Amino acid sequence: MTAIQKSLAEFLGTFWLVFGGCGSAVIAAAFPDVGIGLLGVSLAFGLTVVTMAYAIGHISGCHLNPAVTIGLWAGGRFPANEIPVYIIAQVVGAVAAAAALYVIASGNADYDLAVNGLAANGVGEKSPGGYAMGAGIAIEILLTFFFLMIILGATDGRAPAGFAPLAIGLGLTLIHLISIPVTNTSVNPARSTGPALMEGGIALSQLWIFWVAPIVGAVIAGSVYKIIGGESPNSAGAKD
Amino acid sequence: MTAIQKSLAEFLGTFWLVFGGCGSAVIAAAFPDVGIGLLGVSLAFGLTVVTMAYAIGHISGCHLNPAVTIGLWAGGRFPANEIPVYIIAQVVGAVAAAAALYVIASGNADYDLAVNGLAANGVGEKSPGGYAMGAGIAIEILLTFFFLMIILGATDGRAPAGFAPLAIGLGLTLIHLISIPVTNTSVNPARSTGPALMEGGIALSQLWIFWVAPIVGAVIAGSVYKIIGGESPNSAGAKD
Amino acid sequence: MTAIQKSLAEFLGTFWLVFGGCGSAVIAAAFPDVGIGLLGVSLAFGLTVVTMAYAIGHISGCHLNPAVTIGLWAGGRFPANEIPVYIIAQVVGAVAAAAALYVIASGNADYDLAVNGLAANGVGEKSPGGYAMGAGIAIEILLTFFFLMIILGATDGRAPAGFAPLAIGLGLTLIHLISIPVTNTSVNPARSTGPALMEGGIALSQLWIFWVAPIVGAVIAGSVYKIIGGESPNSAGAKD
Amino acid sequence: MTAIQKSLAEFLGTFWLVFGGCGSAVIAAAFPDVGIGLLGVSLAFGLTVVTMAYAIGHISGCHLNPAVTIGLWAGGRFPANEIPVYIIAQVVGAVAAAAALYVIASGNADYDLAVNGLAANGVGEKSPGGYAMGAGIAIEILLTFFFLMIILGATDGRAPAGFAPLAIGLGLTLIHLISIPVTNTSVNPARSTGPALMEGGIALSQLWIFWVAPIVGAVIAGSVYKIIGGESPNSAGAKD
Repeated sequence: MTAIQKSLAEFLGTFWLVFGGCGSAVIAAAFPDVGIGLLGVSLAFGLTVVTMAYAIGHISGCHLNPAVTIGLWAGGRFPANEIPVYIIAQVVGAVAAAAALYVIASGNADYDLAVNGLAANGVGEKSPGGYAMGAGIAIEILLTFFFLMIILGATDGRAPAGFAPLAIGLGLTLIHLISIPVTNTSVNPARSTGPALMEGGIALSQLWIFWVAPIVGAVIAGSVYKIIGGESPNSAGAKD
Repeated sequence: MTAIQKSLAEFLGTFWLVFGGCGSAVIAAAFPDVGIGLLGVSLAFGLTVVTMAYAIGHISGCHLNPAVTIGLWAGGRFPANEIPVYIIAQVVGAVAAAAALYVIASGNADYDLAVNGLAANGVGEKSPGGYAMGAGIAIEILLTFFFLMIILGATDGRAPAGFAPLAIGLGLTLIHLISIPVTNTSVNPARSTGPALMEGGIALSQLWIFWVAPIVGAVIAGSVYKIIGGESPNSAGAKD
Repeated sequence: MTAIQKSLAEFLGTFWLVFGGCGSAVIAAAFPDVGIGLLGVSLAFGLTVVTMAYAIGHISGCHLNPAVTIGLWAGGRFPANEIPVYIIAQVVGAVAAAAALYVIASGNADYDLAVNGLAANGVGEKSPGGYAMGAGIAIEILLTFFFLMIILGATDGRAPAGFAPLAIGLGLTLIHLISIPVTNTSVNPARSTGPALMEGGIALSQLWIFWVAPIVGAVIAGSVYKIIGGESPNSAGAKD
Repeated sequence: MTAIQKSLAEFLGTFWLVFGGCGSAVIAAAFPDVGIGLLGVSLAFGLTVVTMAYAIGHISGCHLNPAVTIGLWAGGRFPANEIPVYIIAQVVGAVAAAAALYVIASGNADYDLAVNGLAANGVGEKSPGGYAMGAGIAIEILLTFFFLMIILGATDGRAPAGFAPLAIGLGLTLIHLISIPVTNTSVNPARSTGPALMEGGIALSQLWIFWVAPIVGAVIAGSVYKIIGGESPNSAGAKD
């Protein structure tokens, strides 16, 4: 595929991740009586990755996440020179999705960006459950580390072919099941950037956390997987 | 397969989609204390597609949806001359399912078609969450666009074989997780037609929205996937 | 495999279906504040089939259900002479599971068989949502018809290999998402027999419904699939 | 793989199982209004296994559970001399995870270890639903028996390749859907040991139950599967 095709795929895929994940949170999570709750939002985030990994995995590898792109590079699975264009496409897709979600959410007269937000990530006063910054940073590093372990392992040439999108997407569901109350769950700098730019305020001032922590976790995973996995012939399949 | 076999498969499959999806909404979503909620309804819609795609994918391709049939044609995956018979079978199946659901729901003495309805789609005063028509049209176009991107991608000959039904069905679950509060989620003109014909009133007067918006989204996806995906040898597998 | 091995497999598999499905309903569905609800019960029933179909599909075909055994025979996929031993093993497994569930549920001092029951099926006054007998019979026929269509289709030699257990198990989840309020969902005479024998009373007097309706639906599906599916080389894989 | 690589994989995988499963219970299950409930916790436990089985199945077999390791040995699938190092790695991983969870949970000012705990297992007064010790022991034996039947069956060389991680992980979800109210669900001595060591008190005094019962169930399954399954060539795939 050409670089333009890969970029378009990453743009659309990351748009889908943010629109679907944050959209389900903003629109449906707390719907009266029959809302989908955090379980539904967790499923939605994971299914954006399951669906896109089958749809565009053969085009761009379906990273949709700067931490994934960098972690795959750290694990020896992705070339350094393609990193910038991937990250730019991901961030642009995430911002476009947050804007689109804002437009649609505003179709409800009760929606107020300042009150309802766009599912931005946060710690401390911005943490859904009031968790301190230290806990937020720690869990983002830890969860992104395991997210990359899952990605590196499931796309290893020795893992069963074709199942990586399920393992990775359901892994993202699991990560949300654990951590939405702590940070609203990022493990993805692009996903954090879209809503933060639209919301501004605390979400924007804390945005650095959701770039640093996921990337730290991802880079560690790239190194650790090399130790545990030994020679890992790259899968012809899903991720890059 | 013969045209009759394909038509029967599309009829039964679309019956299943409407009976299962709308049936879970009407019968089980708001059951006291232990109701399945919008999350359960989302899962039900998606599983109708997962199950039928494995059951009849090898017979008709399991479209179950005029927008899918037209979007696959736009993407160069389905012959124009088969479109009418597919759409007729889908609509007849959907109407039959809505009628069957009405009969069974009426087995409950508390059920009243005018009050409880049959899970028809709508915007404005008919939107479950009170979303304006513009938001409803926009999200139906957007979600059907992504639904077709998932279908075109997951059935691409380069995607892992056999997984398309999971990706597509779970994609429909995801779409419902996001958008039930906005339009009660269509992305499928046949699914909208069945309940609207039975309910009449606003649902029927708004039915055009759920033909136009999904088909617009689907046609755009057919064109965009050709750009992003480049040469896309058709999968021998699931869809068409 | 020998007939004894097949029988043991069907016994254990049906035990698992009834213990897991009815057990989740009795023990966890209405647990205060965090109960799994009808969605959790629907998932549990489906997962008993997913797990057993992968575990014993290569031994007995994993029917776990007299209607499935008879429907597969009607569809030309199962020899008539093996039907009796399969059904006996299934019913014995279901009864043993209901007894085991009763013993464990009784470990809770608040449990009372006469009040809490064992998730038996029923219509009219025994229907969870108060649905009339006609609606109950109709939906059991309809849902078992589609259940067998899914089974016959997903195990067709032209369907993707290996996925049938997922399609079939998730199909059972879907069936429960729709119909628990109507009949508590049977589509399986053995599943109905276990709890009815333990509960007695109305459940026992209505048990005939849950033998007749599912078998009628299954036999119709066996004939219809032959028409729609045409030549259907039997899968080497899961069911049968 | 070397013994060190296998041990590291089991350490990390069991860490993930306990951190993800118990973490979702402690952090997200009872979150106000939109908490994930026991259904979400059940899904989380299962997904830890799904994700790790695809990620490290080709390294260590992904047991993550002393009862699994011993049950596989009883079924003739695992060498006795590797049992000790596997169990040590699993227990160390579980304890580390419980400690990590405690640190992160403490980032919430309202968290109190003595009150909120770490999702330890228990019976009687420590049972979430107040179930007696006998019921707790019985269900742990029974559920671990079926868990091993699923593992032995799904990794049998005659079962469809590649699906074992889904069957096994979703089997663990099912087990939790049934039994969280009884014992908080163990079927895994390592998973019980981590939180019990951190909580102390009743959890620690009852810990023996969650070593004895799961191992008894697992050993029985190893023998029974040999009878039902006959010759069972070991899968090249997931569970060693």
